[in-house]
Amino acid sequence: MAILQPIVNIAEICAQRHVTQCILSPGSRCAPLTLAFVRHLQIHTRTIPDERSAAFIALGMASQSRQTVVLVCTSGTAVLNYAPAITEAYYQQVPLLVLTADRPSEWIEQQDGQTIRQREVYGKHVKASFELPVAFTHPDAEWHTYRIINEALTIAQTYPFGPVHINVPLREPLYPSAGEEVVFDKTVRIIQPFKPEQILTVDQWIQIREQWEDADRKLIVAGQYPYQAPLAHVLKQLQTELEVPIIADIISNLHTLPDVIRYQDMLLMQKNTELLENLKPDLLITFGNSVISKNVKLFLRKHKPSIHWHIQPAGIPADPFQSLTHVLPVEPLYFFKTLFEDLDYQHFLSNDEPEYGTDYYALWQKENQKAAKVYSSLFSSASFSEFEAVSEMMDRLPDESILHLANSMPVRYANFISLQAGQTVEVFANRGTSGIDGSNGTALGAALTTEKLVILLTGDMAFLYDRNSLWHNYLPKNLRIIVLNNHGGGIFRLLDGPAGQPELEEYFETRQRNTAELTAKDAGMLYSYCNSREQLGKQLTAFFDLSGGAKLLEIETDPAVNAEVYARFKQYFTT
Amino acid sequence: MAILQPIVNIAEICAQRHVTQCILSPGSRCAPLTLAFVRHLQIHTRTIPDERSAAFIALGMASQSRQTVVLVCTSGTAVLNYAPAITEAYYQQVPLLVLTADRPSEWIEQQDGQTIRQREVYGKHVKASFELPVAFTHPDAEWHTYRIINEALTIAQTYPFGPVHINVPLREPLYPSAGEEVVFDKTVRIIQPFKPEQILTVDQWIQIREQWEDADRKLIVAGQYPYQAPLAHVLKQLQTELEVPIIADIISNLHTLPDVIRYQDMLLMQKNTELLENLKPDLLITFGNSVISKNVKLFLRKHKPSIHWHIQPAGIPADPFQSLTHVLPVEPLYFFKTLFEDLDYQHFLSNDEPEYGTDYYALWQKENQKAAKVYSSLFSSASFSEFEAVSEMMDRLPDESILHLANSMPVRYANFISLQAGQTVEVFANRGTSGIDGSNGTALGAALTTEKLVILLTGDMAFLYDRNSLWHNYLPKNLRIIVLNNHGGGIFRLLDGPAGQPELEEYFETRQRNTAELTAKDAGMLYSYCNSREQLGKQLTAFFDLSGGAKLLEIETDPAVNAEVYARFKQYFTT
Repeated sequence: MAILQPIVNIAEICAQRHVTQCILSPGSRCAPLTLAFVRHLQIHTRTIPDERSAAFIALGMASQSRQTVVLVCTSGTAVLNYAPAITEAYYQQVPLLVLTADRPSEWIEQQDGQTIRQREVYGKHVKASFELPVAFTHPDAEWHTYRIINEALTIAQTYPFGPVHINVPLREPLYPSAGEEVVFDKTVRIIQPFKPEQILTVDQWIQIREQWEDADRKLIVAGQYPYQAPLAHVLKQLQTELEVPIIADIISNLHTLPDVIRYQDMLLMQKNTELLENLKPDLLITFGNSVISKNVKLFLRKHKPSIHWHIQPAGIPADPFQSLTHVLPVEPLYFFKTLFEDLDYQHFLSNDEPEYGTDYYALWQKENQKAAKVYSSLFSSASFSEFEAVSEMMDRLPDESILHLANSMPVRYANFISLQAGQTVEVFANRGTSGIDGSNGTALGAALTTEKLVILLTGDMAFLYDRNSLWHNYLPKNLRIIVLNNHGGGIFRLLDGPAGQPELEEYFETRQRNTAELTAKDAGMLYSYCNSREQLGKQLTAFFDLSGGAKLLEIETDPAVNAEVYARFKQYFTT
Repeated sequence: MAILQPIVNIAEICAQRHVTQCILSPGSRCAPLTLAFVRHLQIHTRTIPDERSAAFIALGMASQSRQTVVLVCTSGTAVLNYAPAITEAYYQQVPLLVLTADRPSEWIEQQDGQTIRQREVYGKHVKASFELPVAFTHPDAEWHTYRIINEALTIAQTYPFGPVHINVPLREPLYPSAGEEVVFDKTVRIIQPFKPEQILTVDQWIQIREQWEDADRKLIVAGQYPYQAPLAHVLKQLQTELEVPIIADIISNLHTLPDVIRYQDMLLMQKNTELLENLKPDLLITFGNSVISKNVKLFLRKHKPSIHWHIQPAGIPADPFQSLTHVLPVEPLYFFKTLFEDLDYQHFLSNDEPEYGTDYYALWQKENQKAAKVYSSLFSSASFSEFEAVSEMMDRLPDESILHLANSMPVRYANFISLQAGQTVEVFANRGTSGIDGSNGTALGAALTTEKLVILLTGDMAFLYDRNSLWHNYLPKNLRIIVLNNHGGGIFRLLDGPAGQPELEEYFETRQRNTAELTAKDAGMLYSYCNSREQLGKQLTAFFDLSGGAKLLEIETDPAVNAEVYARFKQYFTT
């Protein structure tokens, strides 16, 4: 037997634990793993040459499906190229099982090719790191292997979800002998984890209700969170019936709630201290991961609530507003549902009409509407800019589509503009670490996982940085990429600090002359181009059409005009 | 003062410690470092958008110049994208000073953008890792900073050379205030390290001479080593006057010695056990880093010397032939020079004609010449293959040029083919970890550092993997890239293991349809193409011509023909 049975059985355990997707990269050391996953009928495999892209594609698949995706690579720097996506997965809480093939430990540091120190190579950016035994002469080694695979899958799928690394030392031979079959042992050991439901005690709920009743002005701020219909439903009840304002970053996926505060990033630019003081909550309730809006952060850090509840089932909580007072280790859905029912029941018992902070709720609504109005008149008299292009594009997003936002300006523009309540669009962004390095891959991975249209909004720097994510044989037809090309890192021209330096163009913007055309051609994507509002208006329909395969639309704009429009926009709100 | 003086002074210390080159990548958190290096008159800066490429370019510059190159990037996954090149630098022993900007520690894990756990993020793949203080209110913080920078530079430049990491937490503001000048403190503290010379004692030399005299058959095997004229000179004396065969991998840069064994990778394929037993050394002397030739490794592991001296000034030695018996912690030049002089003097004293293992030397020479002859007839009757293309190209390399070899097949072909004694070509390859991920960047970095022609021989997978190393504004005119395009990882078809699997094309070769043309066009390189020996013969002259700017020559071949020619070649030697 050339390939060891316990290595083959890794794929079987993954399959029985409901893994269906595996992303491979080429290599010889990983051949036993490659063959095990490729030949397993319940697991779909694809191979991506650039490991940096492979890992981002796996991340996109896992965030779309909310299932663990397996990654397999060969030894050496291949392993290191996974690190950016693994770190993003760690902070964005996306489950990945990362299998890195390695030489056996006696050959480490012996000047053999593709040999580095792979043990715990991802440091603190994985939830756990294991190493499989290299030989199976003792029966405990097999037990150890199956235990590790089971445990790794459980850890990856336990809140906070995330990547788990298993280093797999493999001795030669790495390929099956002639005529040798790869046979999966269906009776391999499976350790099924039960998932407990975490709830709060009656005493804790009494305390929560007291704090709630004591606070006049209550505010909910949602961070990055996948769309959950039942959660949206109960938040809608809280908002409508109890008049609690909810601030919804674009990545909170709460834009479908009709009266949500969606222009927070504009309205909180205002310098009117009295207004800001009036918007200050007594009780702040937060859930989800990061918030994009810098203005929300600055507002809350300056106008701190007396009480700040953060709802997070497990893990060390962050304190991004420097205001945290209570951590509630439960699911947001459980919390808001129980809270609402409890308040409702108390009011039923007391038979009182409850009094809510109606003025407070109305003030947020008023400011939100004011911002909406200012914003709606912003582009009519201005030259065509990327801000307007994003606005037009977001306005016309097809129903039931998926929107991926690259970092730097795309996600910021989108957060200013927001989506409307009628738009059944789900929003993703790599806001775990906010890098520009894997937006193409993440969107492409999502497109491989859904039938829906996946639309990536990106800039020229992020697009070209990650062009290798389009270099393989699996281009999905439902992928649409919009590249805002201002020939550099446009964000630096919009920030006062770098814009004032003589080094702006060369060292901050990093002017670059390429368009996306040749990359699109190499990738086999249908390419179109525009640089005016008229052209954009005309092209979007065909671009969003489901037929015609993968498409890329490049929108070229002038960085000086972009800066001018952005400055005017800021002026509206800051003066 | 917006930018802190100790941060500005980092550039001043680097300049005074003879750093002249710095590679930046765009970002805001690193702005104080960027401005300090850009504005320092003695340091040349360039900015490269993709950090993976930036680090490989710095590696190429540092290996060409043998001087420390500084890298500066922003916080977050930017830092992780450096890891492949840093690891290559670690194993290839190339000095880099890696400055990663970071947020202050109180903001780590607080869901702020581009914030990860950067302390010691490169794990065991840097020689040392430091973190600068974040505030300078106490005077010791300034002392600490200058000490760290000095120490880091000393460590990077002490054998074994390598990368050193300094994490630099920076609080806002990150940009100078209006009218603020960046002023370098010329009196900043410099700690100059003296470099000792390590020598062996008289007693040790007596022992060495005894072992030398006792051994009938002595063999020198050189691993990866930069070209050093004095070393080449003394090795030539040893070879000619003492008749010690020297096996020179292509990356040992010893091909200029007329009688060096250069076809070892062919001749050691032979299965004749008696011959191999006769080629076995009693005393093996090695120096340098890794050896490419798998056949040399297999031969020595099987036909072990009784004594194996490895010459390495410091660090834990590897034992790639499983035969190491003595470690000599001195410079190879000192060792061979002293050894030769010592033997010479002894013979003078004894007034004897020394007897050397003349038969042994002659046997190696004979086998080397036999291999040369078989090889020279290899392509005449065969279809055009990439093996022949490499042979033709190497034969016609211009004098005083630099050859960079990408991993996988290019470096293997080149090692089979070898260079001739008359060829004044220096050879580089990323054989520290043997990844395919940074060959373009490394060659480009070298080309930025020398006036000589830098020629990279690469394959389609390695070229496209690293295409972002051509995406910036500093394309050097003296860069030549030859892409062997067989539309996949051709090596897998040449290995028995993967070639026998049904998954060969999709999962091992990873067939890909792109050529290098559009990437060359985006990069602004002059592109030419050929797919026959006639075309290649004609095009090489113009391609190697110094005028005309950066050029790329794509040689497209049929993977099946490549496999056939390679099989025939192997057959010559193995049967």
